[in-house]
Amino acid sequence: MVILEIPTNRQVDLVLITEKISSAVSQQGWQDGILTVYIPHTTAAVTINENADPDVVRDIVMETNKVIPFEDHYRHMEGNAAAHIKASLFGSSETIIIEQGRLVLGTWQGIFLADFDGPRRRRVFLKFIGS
Amino acid sequence: MVILEIPTNRQVDLVLITEKISSAVSQQGWQDGILTVYIPHTTAAVTINENADPDVVRDIVMETNKVIPFEDHYRHMEGNAAAHIKASLFGSSETIIIEQGRLVLGTWQGIFLADFDGPRRRRVFLKFIGS
Amino acid sequence: MVILEIPTNRQVDLVLITEKISSAVSQQGWQDGILTVYIPHTTAAVTINENADPDVVRDIVMETNKVIPFEDHYRHMEGNAAAHIKASLFGSSETIIIEQGRLVLGTWQGIFLADFDGPRRRRVFLKFIGS
Repeated sequence: MVILEIPTNRQVDLVLITEKISSAVSQQGWQDGILTVYIPHTTAAVTINENADPDVVRDIVMETNKVIPFEDHYRHMEGNAAAHIKASLFGSSETIIIEQGRLVLGTWQGIFLADFDGPRRRRVFLKFIGS
Repeated sequence: MVILEIPTNRQVDLVLITEKISSAVSQQGWQDGILTVYIPHTTAAVTINENADPDVVRDIVMETNKVIPFEDHYRHMEGNAAAHIKASLFGSSETIIIEQGRLVLGTWQGIFLADFDGPRRRRVFLKFIGS
Repeated sequence: MVILEIPTNRQVDLVLITEKISSAVSQQGWQDGILTVYIPHTTAAVTINENADPDVVRDIVMETNKVIPFEDHYRHMEGNAAAHIKASLFGSSETIIIEQGRLVLGTWQGIFLADFDGPRRRRVFLKFIGS
């Protein structure tokens, strides 16, 4: 397992981690199989979306903040209930295909760590299974 | 890796792909392991839900269109911001179990390509890992 | 494949299944790889979230019931359309990493079966792939 350490910069922040994952794939010599991207936090998630226009990420953040408001008579006392809810909706794991030593992504896809309760230092776990 | 080509027919369209995936499993002779179903698009996703009553899919489409409206002061200029947001909520990958050469699904489950910005020709990537 | 049988207790109920999964890992002698947690139902899902303060689960249930209301002019006649929609948003599968014979989870993470149309007896499929 490889562990990435990712600093985030805002309360809700989608940080592009494609390059860091690609580097791990190269350094580890992973050639052909699948890669589990796993987030070991309860107020963060992994998501795959457009990496070209930064307004896409901005719109994802804006709209999910609106659908799941920061305050809504939550009972959880730490004040980050909305972040927990978003984490469950986005999900803790994604599986990426690796072939010929490279991530197989769509043209516009990037892999993002989605922090819903930042800024913090977050971790991303990578586990490769060869085919 | 096997690539399916799936045409979609409406702006928001959940297309059943269970049969096409089952056929790939048979043709490839995949016997026992897991199958990653991966969508290489940023305005489409994969989801597993009821395949019996078509009103279930209709309700999923209707309600998610309501929760994430097509227009909401988004900044992304291509006009499909809502589709990107839905793609992140539904997710880019699902993992299916294969045993004795067959997909292990629940009685009512079907696998759907969820296009949120159609109609288009979409691709689905299938990667098998044997156990 | 290992099948867990999980009774749920309320209409919407997040049942902690971490211990049952850990026991399966030990009993099966799974040492190093990934574990697919798969829910073979169309009105239930798997989610990973905080296991410390029960108010987190309470808030997830409260808010998702509000965002996807039980009644909203759905056409599906069984009366559980909202449960189907939530199942697609939370997702049918998650992948967990196993190392040295143990689940690799974050400090506060628990694995939950999310039943959106209970109470019922539900099943959870576990499939291990060694690395």
